[in-house]
Amino acid sequence: MKLAIINPNSTESMTQKCKEVALKFKNNDTEIWASNPENSPKSIEGHYDEVKSLAGLMEEIKKAKDWGADAYVIACFDDPGLEAARELAEGPVIGICEAAMHMTTILASSFSVVTTLNRSVPIIEELSHKYGMSKFCRKVRAANIPVLSLEDGTCNAKQKIEKEILKAVEEDNCEAIILGCAGMADLTIELSQKCNIPVVDGVLCALKMAESLVGAKLKTSKINAYSYPIVK
Amino acid sequence: MKLAIINPNSTESMTQKCKEVALKFKNNDTEIWASNPENSPKSIEGHYDEVKSLAGLMEEIKKAKDWGADAYVIACFDDPGLEAARELAEGPVIGICEAAMHMTTILASSFSVVTTLNRSVPIIEELSHKYGMSKFCRKVRAANIPVLSLEDGTCNAKQKIEKEILKAVEEDNCEAIILGCAGMADLTIELSQKCNIPVVDGVLCALKMAESLVGAKLKTSKINAYSYPIVK
Amino acid sequence: MKLAIINPNSTESMTQKCKEVALKFKNNDTEIWASNPENSPKSIEGHYDEVKSLAGLMEEIKKAKDWGADAYVIACFDDPGLEAARELAEGPVIGICEAAMHMTTILASSFSVVTTLNRSVPIIEELSHKYGMSKFCRKVRAANIPVLSLEDGTCNAKQKIEKEILKAVEEDNCEAIILGCAGMADLTIELSQKCNIPVVDGVLCALKMAESLVGAKLKTSKINAYSYPIVK
Amino acid sequence: MKLAIINPNSTESMTQKCKEVALKFKNNDTEIWASNPENSPKSIEGHYDEVKSLAGLMEEIKKAKDWGADAYVIACFDDPGLEAARELAEGPVIGICEAAMHMTTILASSFSVVTTLNRSVPIIEELSHKYGMSKFCRKVRAANIPVLSLEDGTCNAKQKIEKEILKAVEEDNCEAIILGCAGMADLTIELSQKCNIPVVDGVLCALKMAESLVGAKLKTSKINAYSYPIVK
Amino acid sequence: MKLAIINPNSTESMTQKCKEVALKFKNNDTEIWASNPENSPKSIEGHYDEVKSLAGLMEEIKKAKDWGADAYVIACFDDPGLEAARELAEGPVIGICEAAMHMTTILASSFSVVTTLNRSVPIIEELSHKYGMSKFCRKVRAANIPVLSLEDGTCNAKQKIEKEILKAVEEDNCEAIILGCAGMADLTIELSQKCNIPVVDGVLCALKMAESLVGAKLKTSKINAYSYPIVK
Amino acid sequence: MKLAIINPNSTESMTQKCKEVALKFKNNDTEIWASNPENSPKSIEGHYDEVKSLAGLMEEIKKAKDWGADAYVIACFDDPGLEAARELAEGPVIGICEAAMHMTTILASSFSVVTTLNRSVPIIEELSHKYGMSKFCRKVRAANIPVLSLEDGTCNAKQKIEKEILKAVEEDNCEAIILGCAGMADLTIELSQKCNIPVVDGVLCALKMAESLVGAKLKTSKINAYSYPIVK
Repeated sequence: MKLAIINPNSTESMTQKCKEVALKFKNNDTEIWASNPENSPKSIEGHYDEVKSLAGLMEEIKKAKDWGADAYVIACFDDPGLEAARELAEGPVIGICEAAMHMTTILASSFSVVTTLNRSVPIIEELSHKYGMSKFCRKVRAANIPVLSLEDGTCNAKQKIEKEILKAVEEDNCEAIILGCAGMADLTIELSQKCNIPVVDGVLCALKMAESLVGAKLKTSKINAYSYPIVK
Repeated sequence: MKLAIINPNSTESMTQKCKEVALKFKNNDTEIWASNPENSPKSIEGHYDEVKSLAGLMEEIKKAKDWGADAYVIACFDDPGLEAARELAEGPVIGICEAAMHMTTILASSFSVVTTLNRSVPIIEELSHKYGMSKFCRKVRAANIPVLSLEDGTCNAKQKIEKEILKAVEEDNCEAIILGCAGMADLTIELSQKCNIPVVDGVLCALKMAESLVGAKLKTSKINAYSYPIVK
Repeated sequence: MKLAIINPNSTESMTQKCKEVALKFKNNDTEIWASNPENSPKSIEGHYDEVKSLAGLMEEIKKAKDWGADAYVIACFDDPGLEAARELAEGPVIGICEAAMHMTTILASSFSVVTTLNRSVPIIEELSHKYGMSKFCRKVRAANIPVLSLEDGTCNAKQKIEKEILKAVEEDNCEAIILGCAGMADLTIELSQKCNIPVVDGVLCALKMAESLVGAKLKTSKINAYSYPIVK
Repeated sequence: MKLAIINPNSTESMTQKCKEVALKFKNNDTEIWASNPENSPKSIEGHYDEVKSLAGLMEEIKKAKDWGADAYVIACFDDPGLEAARELAEGPVIGICEAAMHMTTILASSFSVVTTLNRSVPIIEELSHKYGMSKFCRKVRAANIPVLSLEDGTCNAKQKIEKEILKAVEEDNCEAIILGCAGMADLTIELSQKCNIPVVDGVLCALKMAESLVGAKLKTSKINAYSYPIVK
Repeated sequence: MKLAIINPNSTESMTQKCKEVALKFKNNDTEIWASNPENSPKSIEGHYDEVKSLAGLMEEIKKAKDWGADAYVIACFDDPGLEAARELAEGPVIGICEAAMHMTTILASSFSVVTTLNRSVPIIEELSHKYGMSKFCRKVRAANIPVLSLEDGTCNAKQKIEKEILKAVEEDNCEAIILGCAGMADLTIELSQKCNIPVVDGVLCALKMAESLVGAKLKTSKINAYSYPIVK
Repeated sequence: MKLAIINPNSTESMTQKCKEVALKFKNNDTEIWASNPENSPKSIEGHYDEVKSLAGLMEEIKKAKDWGADAYVIACFDDPGLEAARELAEGPVIGICEAAMHMTTILASSFSVVTTLNRSVPIIEELSHKYGMSKFCRKVRAANIPVLSLEDGTCNAKQKIEKEILKAVEEDNCEAIILGCAGMADLTIELSQKCNIPVVDGVLCALKMAESLVGAKLKTSKINAYSYPIVK
């Protein structure tokens, strides 16, 4: 199968990080295409950044479709443009927050999310409502780090995330942690061992969910919500 | 006060219709600015059309802010770009679906929505969840008319809407009807009389809600969710 | 338009305070009628006080109707008698808790409420469920002050409220504060500046919501829930 | 134990009917006191009638307390004044809608309610939300009979109720029926046999729930919500 | 009436404790049958222990039915096998968690649960959702004691429970406590007095609920969910 | 990876059918182990049948663990014993209802379920609540066929299912169909084409979800809910 992973922001190192995770965990016969728009914000921190990323993101979806993608992963934890992309595509389109939340409920009776900035907390809380997952989501926490500090290694990003996970373990009565940013995709194993709790990354979850759906020969329903855009 | 009403699609006759409703119902000291993006879809029918409208919509929000707007109405029943616009603006930003749903719960213990196309039904249902209004929303119904038929008078649009309202009255046990499209803003009085049930339009509701919030000297909270976009 | 503001308790200074807020913020063409029953409890602190206020409250609604009221505000944060008053009246009847909660969700993704006594906390929590607002309500907090201490200046009422707001800001991850008592209507501006968070008062919100609904020519639906009382 | 059953309306034949049900089903050592206010509406049909009944209802609660009541049943399916009565009393206060809904969930995975008038439907729906029972409540239906027709035998009341139950059985996928009016308390056995589904009456349920709570030596919590009214 | 109380674990001292509570609080004409399976786990601590208890539990239900039971109490706070037992029996089958939660909402606007081990917390939280009681349940807390320590007097079980109740009173804003284990059935009076809050036990609640339902001549609905098992 | 698929009933032809679906859709490197208990009911139709299957099901889980299973699928749409099996196992344990519901929400904004018998409808509705999926589940429908008629070809099972799907398409406003029985696993492609709507089978979904979780190196959290059973 051919899988397109699209990072909606324009930071190529994040796109590469997602690609590396995918290459490491993908099935043998999965071909990976990873891209990002050029004219998108450097990072997605809030609703406006989401909006600014959408035109480019849609273009990448179209390019991926031309490439022959069987499924699409949108690699930003706010899951921007998910439903619009589903209208464009026939193959399944998977958000990384969505995939992580659904899959984690199979492993644990509850989870907390650790994301980057406080401003992303209400966005992720709203996603948990939208996906029916609020019942399982103990708390959405911010480590108070800018997204790009995950790339440039400033701000002691990893230490702050670890500290926030340990607080979640102590205070939230949660049984798993979801990392709330595509830029954290490379940290799961280390953090899981250090903090002694399953730590789940959405990029990896979405990759596997995409392989699952394609493997099951399932496609986006074209009845109502995700029917093709009307040509105008 | 200065109120910007922004129609996210590019059909000027709809913008004018919204403006006329506003001019007819506004407070004396409310100054109306009505606009639409030029490069937006002709109508917003589904998630992809929403996404296509957002860049232009944000530009209009910025123009309105430069004009000195005290509040902003986004005149499309899908409430596209609402949260992103709130990040940009200091004055309140009001969606027409949002305003109609909130205000109707003060007048009636339940309502049904009559919108244009089936593909918009799940979008509006999701909005009712997002706003905490699903408890009051009996049913979202489609009259099966394209948005633009409301402008060009084809399809017997008005008759189809009336028929769907009468079905709602008979089947849904609802106490009010909300019209689920900005293009229906001029139909409320006639339909309310014909169908013998309060018929609520979101453009009008959002206009008055905007005047209310500005009159109460209330502004968008800049803590977390709607804080200003981070400059990159 | 003619707006009746009815304080269900019998403390005239609270009625006056509500009237002053209304006179300060009302539209030019809004005429204010403020009253309270004579034989009502001095303050409404709990369900029994609510019940004791209702007969007098209904009489005031009737008097206001005779006066020609276009809309009615019930100025007690427990929103007593709201639905019964809607049966009596044709013009909209607005509760101050209701108005504050609905309008605040347009300005902020979440809020906490600061009220007077602990016994009012479950009442307000239940209202948040009833209005579909529990999703937005982070916490209902009590400043542990009797309602009348807001009138006689005892108990350091203002300082206690301020302290509780600051705790909410620190602990609740909320983006706005709603003051949970009509007797706090004069404190919003000062507290908002001191605590650096939007502070919302229900009396003001209900005033503006009333003007909105009347301005939009919307009236209480007389289908089922709020149909006129059956004469016996 | 001493049990007070208070019918909030002033129709003595309904009070007698409730008393007869209680005398027939009570434990041996339960002493029944049945009363109604004199100055209450003849029947409770809507929120305003509820409000009109409350002052008298509270007086009856006080009289019952003087009599030495161990528990109190409020015999109207709208459960008016429940929380206020709990503030006054130390012994448990039980609503008949409340008791019927809770107890029915032990017997059936879902139920529908058949009440008198359409205007009572939203009231009972709201009660189902308040009690956490909306998940079990398939539908609230009205037989379109005035409350008093249950007393005077007009309107073919019994036939209309039976017909509505049969519709519920056919359309609602429910496993039990709750009768939504104290005036229907004498109909359960006949209707249950005719319609071949458990038919539950709230007066009987509340009687038994009262005996249960007193038998378990449980009393109303005086922490916060139901603490004694503050003397003014 | 004849009431069967079945302790699903094989610790006879717990069965006896339940029986003693029942004998102390039962109605005069209630005959008590208390039993437990022989081949069940010594205590039910988690889902697997539940599963291991079910075959024996079903046998006890059948024996009790042969004995002529009018109702059945399953005396384990996880309410194992409740629905399956309802299929077997005609008389009502009551879970102790279920009974305690329903009855407590009549006495208090909210409660917290204090159970034995952390692993039982998500089980009880899920039950609160299942019964529609999550709205009333402030928190499920574990005293961190093995179930059997309640029998053998080790671990300072009683002190740990008391300490956890006091934490709930201080932190949870709750108005009643439910003890989350059948083995705590003898502690309610002492703990209620010491901690100054109503403390509710499920065994006692289920006993009285059983007497109520039988007294009201109500039986399990045999439509759909709890219809008799299909013979194979 | 090594995947155990356990059919909790004792009908081997159903086990074979599940195995065939798995062999057809599995990844190349997935090894399939399919089994069923010998002493289980022939089919699972209701809660009691579930209970009767659990002891054998747990034994199969243990055997599969000894075989070295990396993940486990419980192939009955009631998802019996899911949580207990998670306590026993380290590898993920997936229910077929669970997997189907989660995965379908990625493809469609809503679904209806078509199952065998009416008595299974409330069981599946309750599962949809438990998994947070009730928001997406339009309706659970029964085709009124015994489970085993899917094996022996009696009752026109396939035609009845097709008819019920077409009713769902017409009446439920759903965008996908989930087949609510493991015995329907071979029907998806044919029904999907005939009824022109995505038709989803839980066995296939659970297979792919299992491969996903193992591929992502995710295991059951051993904190609280699913920690290993305590040895007694």
